[in-house]
Amino acid sequence: MDVIQPVAWTSDGTGVRILDQRALPAREIYRELRSIDDVCDAIATLAVRGAPAIGIAGAMGVTLAVSGAERSTSDAVDAISAAAARIAASRPTAVNLGWALDRIVCAARTHRGSPLDLAIALRAGATRILDEDRAMCRRIGELGATLLPDGARVLTHCNAGALATGGMGTALAAIYVAAEQGRRVEVFADETRPLLQGSRLTAWELHRAGIPVTVLVDGAAATLMRAGAVDLCIVGADRIAANGDVANKIDTCALAVAARYHGVPFYVAAPESTFDGATATGADIVIEERSADEIRCGFGTATAPADVSVRNPAFDVTPAALISAIVSDRAIHRPPFVDLPFASRS
Amino acid sequence: MDVIQPVAWTSDGTGVRILDQRALPAREIYRELRSIDDVCDAIATLAVRGAPAIGIAGAMGVTLAVSGAERSTSDAVDAISAAAARIAASRPTAVNLGWALDRIVCAARTHRGSPLDLAIALRAGATRILDEDRAMCRRIGELGATLLPDGARVLTHCNAGALATGGMGTALAAIYVAAEQGRRVEVFADETRPLLQGSRLTAWELHRAGIPVTVLVDGAAATLMRAGAVDLCIVGADRIAANGDVANKIDTCALAVAARYHGVPFYVAAPESTFDGATATGADIVIEERSADEIRCGFGTATAPADVSVRNPAFDVTPAALISAIVSDRAIHRPPFVDLPFASRS
Repeated sequence: MDVIQPVAWTSDGTGVRILDQRALPAREIYRELRSIDDVCDAIATLAVRGAPAIGIAGAMGVTLAVSGAERSTSDAVDAISAAAARIAASRPTAVNLGWALDRIVCAARTHRGSPLDLAIALRAGATRILDEDRAMCRRIGELGATLLPDGARVLTHCNAGALATGGMGTALAAIYVAAEQGRRVEVFADETRPLLQGSRLTAWELHRAGIPVTVLVDGAAATLMRAGAVDLCIVGADRIAANGDVANKIDTCALAVAARYHGVPFYVAAPESTFDGATATGADIVIEERSADEIRCGFGTATAPADVSVRNPAFDVTPAALISAIVSDRAIHRPPFVDLPFASRS
Repeated sequence: MDVIQPVAWTSDGTGVRILDQRALPAREIYRELRSIDDVCDAIATLAVRGAPAIGIAGAMGVTLAVSGAERSTSDAVDAISAAAARIAASRPTAVNLGWALDRIVCAARTHRGSPLDLAIALRAGATRILDEDRAMCRRIGELGATLLPDGARVLTHCNAGALATGGMGTALAAIYVAAEQGRRVEVFADETRPLLQGSRLTAWELHRAGIPVTVLVDGAAATLMRAGAVDLCIVGADRIAANGDVANKIDTCALAVAARYHGVPFYVAAPESTFDGATATGADIVIEERSADEIRCGFGTATAPADVSVRNPAFDVTPAALISAIVSDRAIHRPPFVDLPFASRS
């Protein structure tokens, strides 16, 4: 399956090549990042997006701080540390970014060898983060594909696809692997207001990969279910509580309620790293409230009175009771979700 | 309650003054229609929208075809008939428009008197259509307001307000009357993709009338219900089948499912003329599929791949089983809806 790769090394290996997601779906533009400034800018302006993809871009990008020609290994380590701090600050809430940068900085600090050895080792370390993510996506896809019968009509929300990861994505990985295995799959992509990741990104990457995809407004999903046009739903997750409650893009909960009412299975796909043992239930998850102007001025046009009050929660919480299964890179977890990592053993 | 009036006579009584809804919410622009061309253009380009408001604009507009100075009453009747045919063709699917124009043409054909008498009578007839609609809105509002306790937090979808009618609207009439009666009411307005009637129109008219209103993406409604922030939902209707199934703007069914799941009452407000005895159940209602570009190219921006497949149903059907009550201008109808006009007596 020819999935899009949003982050890669440049062909000469001295820079990071990214797909500029700001230009999608109108144009497929690649940019070469050759400095820490370039990397910070790409992350801060959402040219790269999706938690795993941001982490990968950060890890690969931070290696641009060293060439191997530094006067000492200690100088090179200092340069890496300073660059990592700058990159981390470009998207402070992205958990994967901090994790990936820490991994590179730790590798640098514990390195014993010349500046050139260090530069080579760090590039290898960043490549490993990319490769691990790609492998994880494939495992999720292989497990998830077992849930998709031939001819499946699958509804998804937001973008849990290749554009968000180093590999095939999470929810979309199940679709890509099923298609690879020769099964016919058809996808309904909710447009996903307010930022339209569904129509701009999911529809674009599936269309490009040759998977039949149809875009609809978020509010039309329930009606398709009612008409018997949807066999199953599969979405990604931003965080999964110990009891199986799932935080994901706003509207996911409404979709899960509609799926239950209409008897449609509702699946969540996410790596085990999404499970948060420190969060007992969804009630403990703090939901980010984003800028009112995403709604008041959504398409560069005034779409609501300029001074009207707005609620713009970025995520919602879907109760575990509405979820048919959670597909991770290790297992298909089924209700009552007693086998989740960190699940209460009471 | 100072509600907006989208259609009225001009101050000199010789034209029709409309609020140009295409400019909302950015600007409040009024236009004076002084010819049949002006009237056709305003209706065709959605400067006037909302089925009752279109009917009223058509009825008032068609009277501009006669001045009372015609050579004979027969000439004046011919002019009215020709103008009515042109106006009807400017929005062929609008049931209220045809009904209102027929009423004026019939009055003209049966008129006995001079051309000047005819012109005066037709203007009075058009004013009557406006007044009847206004009175009907108020009756719906008075009945609907009994469902709103003091401090009610009300969620609504699309625009079933003053902007769509000659009066206070239907769903929003309940809110306006409750506020008039001194009760505190707070409204959550779904933005209502794809055409954003909620954020552009409902938020604008409530805000202008001094009713606290908060806009949210359609997908956030379920989450507000889950948080206990919504006391009841009230929406309009485009058509109501004999069994109480309701066709309304897309996403209404998803909202009703979420309301039922979260134990929130779900009300529909519409005049008795919305009940369609010829339609046994919602399954018999044909749903209009609108242009893909409303979704692929929202507001002049490419928001999906240009050639991607789109489903864009304008309406959905909410089963009667999910509706707590239907408020008309005559009664509050409750499940199992055996008292609906045309309801099966089996």
